[in-house]
Amino acid sequence: MKENILKWVQEGQISFPSVLLTHYKQMNINEEELVLLLHVMAFIEKGNAFPTPTEISARMTVSSTKCSDLLRRLIQKGLITIEEEYSESGIRYEKYSIEPLWSKLINQFLMSENKQQTQNQEKMEM
Amino acid sequence: MKENILKWVQEGQISFPSVLLTHYKQMNINEEELVLLLHVMAFIEKGNAFPTPTEISARMTVSSTKCSDLLRRLIQKGLITIEEEYSESGIRYEKYSIEPLWSKLINQFLMSENKQQTQNQEKMEM
Amino acid sequence: MKENILKWVQEGQISFPSVLLTHYKQMNINEEELVLLLHVMAFIEKGNAFPTPTEISARMTVSSTKCSDLLRRLIQKGLITIEEEYSESGIRYEKYSIEPLWSKLINQFLMSENKQQTQNQEKMEM
Amino acid sequence: MKENILKWVQEGQISFPSVLLTHYKQMNINEEELVLLLHVMAFIEKGNAFPTPTEISARMTVSSTKCSDLLRRLIQKGLITIEEEYSESGIRYEKYSIEPLWSKLINQFLMSENKQQTQNQEKMEM
Repeated sequence: MKENILKWVQEGQISFPSVLLTHYKQMNINEEELVLLLHVMAFIEKGNAFPTPTEISARMTVSSTKCSDLLRRLIQKGLITIEEEYSESGIRYEKYSIEPLWSKLINQFLMSENKQQTQNQEKMEM
Repeated sequence: MKENILKWVQEGQISFPSVLLTHYKQMNINEEELVLLLHVMAFIEKGNAFPTPTEISARMTVSSTKCSDLLRRLIQKGLITIEEEYSESGIRYEKYSIEPLWSKLINQFLMSENKQQTQNQEKMEM
Repeated sequence: MKENILKWVQEGQISFPSVLLTHYKQMNINEEELVLLLHVMAFIEKGNAFPTPTEISARMTVSSTKCSDLLRRLIQKGLITIEEEYSESGIRYEKYSIEPLWSKLINQFLMSENKQQTQNQEKMEM
Repeated sequence: MKENILKWVQEGQISFPSVLLTHYKQMNINEEELVLLLHVMAFIEKGNAFPTPTEISARMTVSSTKCSDLLRRLIQKGLITIEEEYSESGIRYEKYSIEPLWSKLINQFLMSENKQQTQNQEKMEM
């Protein structure tokens, strides 16, 4: 029993800003793409920063080909990037970065905040 | 600036066990249903425990009719339930409970853990 | 076994911005006060927004009198406030708000960010 | 403005099971030790798995000597361990593991759950 709870705890939590859930639609992200982004975050958290479409699709209800397409689309939309890094022993490797997602999400959030403030001001001036 | 960060912080975080992300597929949940479950969790967290299909679909890329269908399916699959409660002043109200989801997820997790242990044992006995 | 994991999951997670951990010292908060703040957050999350010093001290290694002192000090420092609200049936009740903590934390964060940027600029100009 | 929110988001969240907050007292952990454990978790999360007492005390209201004492005490209590590992290029390094903390916490949680169930049963039999 104890081992199972320990295993559960070690698997950890996925945590992300609620704003992503309330704003992904405006960012032109659909549900499949959102879940793919969560999978990429989870893999990065676990130390695998460049999961293959096969690894990701093993956890999704879509094929690995569809997974490749979705990844390509997220890169084209500028939500994730592929970064090149060098390991301690000089070997080149690639990894996903989701920093562009947060950057775009903050833009979207600030835009909708400003819009709301303008609307509130207009109401008050009427 | 400060107000915008404060607003962001107040919106809070969505946090759920990683095991949900690695096991929803085996639980016969697809990506659209998973995201709907996350929306229901987020609404409950914010104090709205019985969001309407219209409220949910406003944040999703699916219509409110599709949202109703998805909710019905999740109830049929025994992942969420509708509970009746009475407010302080005696008014009956309904709310979603996602406890069945956690219960089923734990079952799934224990099943896959046991399966893995059996496989490991079999390997050692070979 | 299953019931125990379910209970664990239902107890949930405490989640707060990492910036609090890296900046509480500069905000003139000590470790005892920080933990008290976490307890208040946890009680609020569980629906008890005005825990008594006795309820809090039951979970801490300090007496309930010491707990009262700590709460008073946090209020004096402007980190938490007591808000009055009215229930659905018109009964007045009190609750803690930790919004001032987030507001002060953001100030502290922006101050240290600006300081760092100024230092970087000075270095570049030398 | 945007850069500051991005920086805040990148700093991330600290997240831990609520059970730790409700049970550390019974585990003979005091508030200072709890906060030290949170600092160690935060450093590990950021990729520094063996922070020095000086690095930790820079964020705490205690001296680096006191920090060393606290770390030693946590190791003696069997809550954290120091693990030896080898880097990709064969260099030996040390890192903290907080797995023993979770293991002990689960024990404490199961003990208090069983105790409560026994008490409930006794009440029913009276």
